[in-house]
Amino acid sequence: MSMISDELVVSEDPLHPANLICSLCTKFYEKDWCLGTGGGISIRDQETNRYYIAPSGVQKELMKPTDLFVVNGYHYDPDHEDTLFIRKPDGLKPSDCTPLFLTCFKELGVSAVIHTHSSNAVMASLLYDDFFEISHIEQVKALPSHKIDPETGKHINLLFQDTLRIPVIENQNFEYELTDDLINICRKYPHTCAVIVRRHGIFVWGPSIQKAKIYNESIDYLLGLAIQMKEMGIDTVKK
Amino acid sequence: MSMISDELVVSEDPLHPANLICSLCTKFYEKDWCLGTGGGISIRDQETNRYYIAPSGVQKELMKPTDLFVVNGYHYDPDHEDTLFIRKPDGLKPSDCTPLFLTCFKELGVSAVIHTHSSNAVMASLLYDDFFEISHIEQVKALPSHKIDPETGKHINLLFQDTLRIPVIENQNFEYELTDDLINICRKYPHTCAVIVRRHGIFVWGPSIQKAKIYNESIDYLLGLAIQMKEMGIDTVKK
Amino acid sequence: MSMISDELVVSEDPLHPANLICSLCTKFYEKDWCLGTGGGISIRDQETNRYYIAPSGVQKELMKPTDLFVVNGYHYDPDHEDTLFIRKPDGLKPSDCTPLFLTCFKELGVSAVIHTHSSNAVMASLLYDDFFEISHIEQVKALPSHKIDPETGKHINLLFQDTLRIPVIENQNFEYELTDDLINICRKYPHTCAVIVRRHGIFVWGPSIQKAKIYNESIDYLLGLAIQMKEMGIDTVKK
Amino acid sequence: MSMISDELVVSEDPLHPANLICSLCTKFYEKDWCLGTGGGISIRDQETNRYYIAPSGVQKELMKPTDLFVVNGYHYDPDHEDTLFIRKPDGLKPSDCTPLFLTCFKELGVSAVIHTHSSNAVMASLLYDDFFEISHIEQVKALPSHKIDPETGKHINLLFQDTLRIPVIENQNFEYELTDDLINICRKYPHTCAVIVRRHGIFVWGPSIQKAKIYNESIDYLLGLAIQMKEMGIDTVKK
Repeated sequence: MSMISDELVVSEDPLHPANLICSLCTKFYEKDWCLGTGGGISIRDQETNRYYIAPSGVQKELMKPTDLFVVNGYHYDPDHEDTLFIRKPDGLKPSDCTPLFLTCFKELGVSAVIHTHSSNAVMASLLYDDFFEISHIEQVKALPSHKIDPETGKHINLLFQDTLRIPVIENQNFEYELTDDLINICRKYPHTCAVIVRRHGIFVWGPSIQKAKIYNESIDYLLGLAIQMKEMGIDTVKK
Repeated sequence: MSMISDELVVSEDPLHPANLICSLCTKFYEKDWCLGTGGGISIRDQETNRYYIAPSGVQKELMKPTDLFVVNGYHYDPDHEDTLFIRKPDGLKPSDCTPLFLTCFKELGVSAVIHTHSSNAVMASLLYDDFFEISHIEQVKALPSHKIDPETGKHINLLFQDTLRIPVIENQNFEYELTDDLINICRKYPHTCAVIVRRHGIFVWGPSIQKAKIYNESIDYLLGLAIQMKEMGIDTVKK
Repeated sequence: MSMISDELVVSEDPLHPANLICSLCTKFYEKDWCLGTGGGISIRDQETNRYYIAPSGVQKELMKPTDLFVVNGYHYDPDHEDTLFIRKPDGLKPSDCTPLFLTCFKELGVSAVIHTHSSNAVMASLLYDDFFEISHIEQVKALPSHKIDPETGKHINLLFQDTLRIPVIENQNFEYELTDDLINICRKYPHTCAVIVRRHGIFVWGPSIQKAKIYNESIDYLLGLAIQMKEMGIDTVKK
Repeated sequence: MSMISDELVVSEDPLHPANLICSLCTKFYEKDWCLGTGGGISIRDQETNRYYIAPSGVQKELMKPTDLFVVNGYHYDPDHEDTLFIRKPDGLKPSDCTPLFLTCFKELGVSAVIHTHSSNAVMASLLYDDFFEISHIEQVKALPSHKIDPETGKHINLLFQDTLRIPVIENQNFEYELTDDLINICRKYPHTCAVIVRRHGIFVWGPSIQKAKIYNESIDYLLGLAIQMKEMGIDTVKK
């Protein structure tokens, strides 16, 4: 298979990973989360176990499916990153977040990772130390808890009075340098669906791109609310 | 009739309730009122007395008419909720707000209910106690008063110097638990067209979906203005 | 001619007044200037001297050309308002601003009037007394001064160091009651292209709808900037 | 060649300079950077060395390719500005920024210049003296440094801990009067990709329009963040 074959990325199905990455990046650009090439999305195709990754340094709202890189998950080997890709568009480089995205997929068993430079995430990282925390806001119920429903065996979402707690890690010079800290924080807090990177942005993941999008939007709403609460002297965790 | 028949929801008329719910949800998503599956809309078809209800946990801006549930109003029976639906799309659950929506329809005799997680409503619920209040702003004239026009017998809207007063109720763990408080507050203040749920969002209703949308937009504008006034030390009710 | 003939309002020309009113109302809705039926636009067709006026109480972003009222300017007679219209769509009422719009056309000799409930205008009316004033901001150069270019005989725009000064009048219970104050303030300050109505919104006019739109956008930008400057303790007029 | 020939500006290629200027102006209008005819874009066609320039005083979001002026770079002569243009649309004047744009092209050797009245740039110019400065925010990495990559010989971008430093020059009555100050500041700080004009807006340039757009968006994001940081008492340069 040619490294620039379009077969892996061209589909008429709007829910194909390659189409979803592009349509979501446009949506996220309009929400000011992906200005100036910032941010990115990676999706695992659950049927083929292939990973779709956005290119580096492109205008996210103009990205086309044929701009995407594809990694075959079964061949994942961090020491041979060059051989990772089964699709490499000419003239493009894969997202600097590639090692981070792949780590999330491997360590967390998730199917989609969203990274944005949301200014709410950056502001929150300046207002909170080790964790962003908020409780007693309805929207926290959109986010997963570490509790299991005894009947279904599935993770259940936070309750209204629960505290959403998102770890904040320090930024590094290069995105790949965040990988170890991301793994460590996820091992320490295995149930978090997001990590804020101080003065940088946020990574959000989920068992599907739909869930990851819902988590990302809900967290951004809560971050924005928290900043406004702080500005007006209101605690974001109710005692 | 099959529970997944499309007959009740497929129409080329943009004003059909199923189409309106979808187009308004897209619009509300763009205004940041329905991020991450939050919020919802329910409409009563005035000709057939059927209630159209959005599904739970879906991305509101992507909802299709075929995702909607339909309840036959004449068979309404809260003790037999399972038998309520005359249309149930496969793989979806009806909005958690269903009991609340149906209560609004039954108790208030309205034809449309809008629920959002508007951050303005949440912020206002942190800045006001039992009532959100604002007066002497032109936009209050878009909202109904409790006064009757002696000539037409119709309710008239607030005047410029009137005070818009929206009750605030406390949030509960589950949306159905809000039902009793919502009924009680509406019996106490039968002329309100909205109730704010503290740290949660807002419910707005009207005699038609057009009116409910106008009320919802007008209230959100007034909530946003009130927050900005508070930030700058200006009272929202003029003495 | 039937009062509901479409002849006056149906055109394929996007610059036809009926099309412009609709496309601009959609644009203004997206800028949050026309939420919940607030605001409106009226345009004088310079060729036919007919005035196009939006209906009252409709969702501005959904308005169609066939929803518009038309007044024949040559028959203008405030004492016989009923006979004003040469087009009256069934089931609609003309904008409550109609007398105000017609007064602007008659008194000011303008060709377009824009009215919005811009929250920037309302906030500014709470922060300034008799005049909103701003100077030394480049965007003031988009607005007309009272000075005449000696060569062309045309009014010239403000210079960078000039002060834009927009009168603020008090709101009244009904929009038609603003007419006298609007006339008086315009006679006193004949060169203003806008009047802010306290706790209500703004009226902006111009020799063409293009100019009125440019003035309206420029003023709203300056109002927003002024509010932000006030919040940060910066005077809006440079001494 | 007729001065109003469409040959130079009509193309089906969305990346043709004439199409890009129009599509970007629409995008920038939606971001509130080009309200009321403010701002503009000029692009150098790298193949033909022709400069495409927007007209003055038009609504930027409605601009058509046929509204554009074209200058033949090889004939550039500031003393004979009248003879500059190889395309002059009837009834339009070239942007007041034309001398500034041409100066940027000549002095800086760039291929695209973006000018906006971004309110973030204006607010920042009121909060900073000679330089806007921000450091330790991931998005600074989207902007060029003055350092050269020893391997590729290309300029490299700022690192995370580097300080982005954008000079602020004083505004003048006419845009062409900014030319000398712009040249001087660029000679003094040859590696800046932007200059803020106090109480006016910002000029941003790059080796391609794609780069200039990325720089402009990244800077505006950083300006907005800096203003929010200042409001909450946080220094924008980390000591």
